[in-house]
Amino acid sequence: MSVVEKEALNDLIKQQGDIVRSLKAEKAPKEKIDEEVAKLLQLKAQLTEDEPHKFVLKTAKGTRDHMPAQMALREKVFSTIISCFKRHGGEAIDTPVFELKDTLTGKYGEDSKLIYDLADQGGEILSLRYDLTVPFARFLAMNKISNIKRYQIGKVYRRDNPAMTRGRYREFYQCDFDIAGQYDLMLPDVECVKILAEILKDLGFNGFVIKVNHREILNGMFEFCGVPADSFKTICSAVDKLDKLPWEDVRKEMVSEKGLAEEVADNINKFVVKKGGSELVTALLSDDLATNAAAKRGLEEMRLFFEYCDLYGITNKVSFDLSLARGLDYYTGIIFEAVLTDDGQPGETVGSVAAGGRYDNLVGMFDAKGRAVPCVGISVGVERIFTLLEARALAEQTKLRTNETEVFVASAQKQLVRERMKICSELWDHGLKVEHSYKQNPKLLAQLQYCEERSIPLAIIIGESELQKGVVKLRKVATREEFEVPRDKLTIEIRNYLKNMSSQQERA
Amino acid sequence: MSVVEKEALNDLIKQQGDIVRSLKAEKAPKEKIDEEVAKLLQLKAQLTEDEPHKFVLKTAKGTRDHMPAQMALREKVFSTIISCFKRHGGEAIDTPVFELKDTLTGKYGEDSKLIYDLADQGGEILSLRYDLTVPFARFLAMNKISNIKRYQIGKVYRRDNPAMTRGRYREFYQCDFDIAGQYDLMLPDVECVKILAEILKDLGFNGFVIKVNHREILNGMFEFCGVPADSFKTICSAVDKLDKLPWEDVRKEMVSEKGLAEEVADNINKFVVKKGGSELVTALLSDDLATNAAAKRGLEEMRLFFEYCDLYGITNKVSFDLSLARGLDYYTGIIFEAVLTDDGQPGETVGSVAAGGRYDNLVGMFDAKGRAVPCVGISVGVERIFTLLEARALAEQTKLRTNETEVFVASAQKQLVRERMKICSELWDHGLKVEHSYKQNPKLLAQLQYCEERSIPLAIIIGESELQKGVVKLRKVATREEFEVPRDKLTIEIRNYLKNMSSQQERA
Repeated sequence: MSVVEKEALNDLIKQQGDIVRSLKAEKAPKEKIDEEVAKLLQLKAQLTEDEPHKFVLKTAKGTRDHMPAQMALREKVFSTIISCFKRHGGEAIDTPVFELKDTLTGKYGEDSKLIYDLADQGGEILSLRYDLTVPFARFLAMNKISNIKRYQIGKVYRRDNPAMTRGRYREFYQCDFDIAGQYDLMLPDVECVKILAEILKDLGFNGFVIKVNHREILNGMFEFCGVPADSFKTICSAVDKLDKLPWEDVRKEMVSEKGLAEEVADNINKFVVKKGGSELVTALLSDDLATNAAAKRGLEEMRLFFEYCDLYGITNKVSFDLSLARGLDYYTGIIFEAVLTDDGQPGETVGSVAAGGRYDNLVGMFDAKGRAVPCVGISVGVERIFTLLEARALAEQTKLRTNETEVFVASAQKQLVRERMKICSELWDHGLKVEHSYKQNPKLLAQLQYCEERSIPLAIIIGESELQKGVVKLRKVATREEFEVPRDKLTIEIRNYLKNMSSQQERA
Repeated sequence: MSVVEKEALNDLIKQQGDIVRSLKAEKAPKEKIDEEVAKLLQLKAQLTEDEPHKFVLKTAKGTRDHMPAQMALREKVFSTIISCFKRHGGEAIDTPVFELKDTLTGKYGEDSKLIYDLADQGGEILSLRYDLTVPFARFLAMNKISNIKRYQIGKVYRRDNPAMTRGRYREFYQCDFDIAGQYDLMLPDVECVKILAEILKDLGFNGFVIKVNHREILNGMFEFCGVPADSFKTICSAVDKLDKLPWEDVRKEMVSEKGLAEEVADNINKFVVKKGGSELVTALLSDDLATNAAAKRGLEEMRLFFEYCDLYGITNKVSFDLSLARGLDYYTGIIFEAVLTDDGQPGETVGSVAAGGRYDNLVGMFDAKGRAVPCVGISVGVERIFTLLEARALAEQTKLRTNETEVFVASAQKQLVRERMKICSELWDHGLKVEHSYKQNPKLLAQLQYCEERSIPLAIIIGESELQKGVVKLRKVATREEFEVPRDKLTIEIRNYLKNMSSQQERA
């Protein structure tokens, strides 16, 4: 297409765009608008068809690669979290990354629009999982499991607006721990909160608070304040925004968008400003609110919860917060959310890093006979934790090793590649972590530099004369000290050196 | 809808189906056919609309859940493989589960039809990754990395015909190790084969062989035999089937389907039956085949490869096999495939469990300037290994523990839940792995049974009288021996018991 032709086409597109816009403005019949939109799209297609198909070198929007340094940090965080899950008797399970679309339908309230669907390529209609909770409930129902303490670490997918600098991605890991089974009130629930507190402490966070509330208290409060029963869910999702928006905005959403009476909204306001500990539970139990049966049940449970928190030594980390709502449809009992507070560290304002709650009816939704399995669980949002720890590592200039190589086999002269390979093979077969250069005749300096850059503790240096004497040179990379070691005692000598070095490091 | 109405509708559907079929048969205009197909689909929709929407409780075709026992085995296999990767200096990286569709296009030859696409939900056109190799090449090009030894463990997706009993799924894990960089001939390549041999040995397989061949030898052989240059790829993918089909079937595919001259096919047959070691390389180097430049280059490389295999002590595990072809488009040099042979174990005929090769041009395909990064790597197909190890575990009736709990805190009387919780909290805070019952007043027998079923080594039993004396009872679950231990020395005593028990196990 010539430049002139292209300009003409662009004009046509503009004209057609105006037609569509004016039809929309005058609210023309849908078929008429669709027809003109189709013409517009066809014109636009002509424009792009003409361009050579450009290959874009990037990852999908909202996703990213992880470099070795990031992976080293990730492995450390995962192993800390898994240790805690195992300390509480957790067993690992795994479920597929995609589910039948029907499995996910109707579980996420207003967030369902964020689910990724797979293309219909002639087969089942599938979607990528949105969290690990709904697949877990499907897993319990399908495999007829009525009690388990399971943990699962896996990626989940949300077509959300990514905010990568704040650790919000479209593909991200969740670390979940859930307790399923018919048990006594608050015993599994308080353990979940204890686990959350342990994990955050183990990861090195001191300033954090775990907000708790109860769906029954919320429902009771809505009823008590005069919210119509069929508006509970939508008002609940409005209250959920109070951690990001001021009350005035939330009130406006309730009244203008969701049609709540002004005085009802003001009633709600009196409650959602309340925060505290067990004393707030006691106060509310003597308040008029407790005349509402649901609120009373919830408050009684919270009283027990706070008593158990004392036994687990986590009371000072827990805050009863009537503004906590949690948008998801499936919660039925206690709900919680862990928020990092100011640790005096740079970039620490990441907000919520973990959340969870009780969902007693979700498994029943998958069971043909509606057989229920009560569940409570937590989900740790590790991406935000990574973002934070990466910022810390950067500020403190700490460097994690990205490999675990213990020995590098170097040669001081040419034509020694075969000798190097023989030594490598021997050491590998004895379980040592060993590298050598993939060049036939590398320069000694380049080989030693490689060791220093990668913090490899030991280097073996071989040369003709040493080989003839039946020895090799062993070098401590950090101090550059060198020792001669008998060739036939190499493995045992290396083991000794590594042992001494690591015990010296421990003492240092 | 009544049964009669339903029958009438079914008749209509049948009639309409006939109309569509006859239109197709007489090659009617496309619009006409589409119109009648639309009518047919509308009729069919009436039929299903009427039925209550049935929810099917299942995982997507070709995928499965993993139970704790499977996960325990998986973790063991992964950690064995990762240990080996780290022993060779590997660093971990991670890439997203989906890529821009363009990234995957044109890399998999005839297998491209098995790629899962994501639905176009208004955004980029995406596909699930088919392997970890192409994303790795994209990763290198995009992040401008010219040398790395990386490993990656992740799920990949193929819309293949699942054969779950033989370990073939649509979602499955691959464990990849690749060496990228401009290095000397065969040095990284032979290390990849060494790694493969180590992994299979570490996993407990004795009977295996690693078949090797070279794309340049294949190309040279095709040229030498008289295959037209533009048929190399399609003939290569026919040869690739020789491990599953007899020569006669492959010959038929070459001649009848792919139009190869009969005598050319027979020329190929003379080569593809050849198997052996370095002596075969020597023989072929004096054969007429070596007059072909490509074949000669490949054979020279194989000579060096076998020399290096000797140094790494893996010659007896390697078989030069001229029938090995590997269908994927991207290989350029050595190719290999590990096959389990009969270990005298039941169900051991799973065939190929790992494969790989050299792909020197793949990264260049992603680089705007075509800047190449030579690569060689292996991919371990762990699903087949799991299927095999699960069958072995079942045959040997070995049981892996699915939890790591060290101590269970039990109560012998009612009203002791708070005492149990205090002890749990103390032990957790000291890093011990502890469980207790989530019932307020569980029966002692039920608690002890739980310990036995789950092989928890120690139980603490608390009762009123012991608590008053300032002691608790410690019970070895396996032997049912019981000891009294001072309450204030509980943690240290438990540590000692666990230490003694594990050293006794080691001696046993």
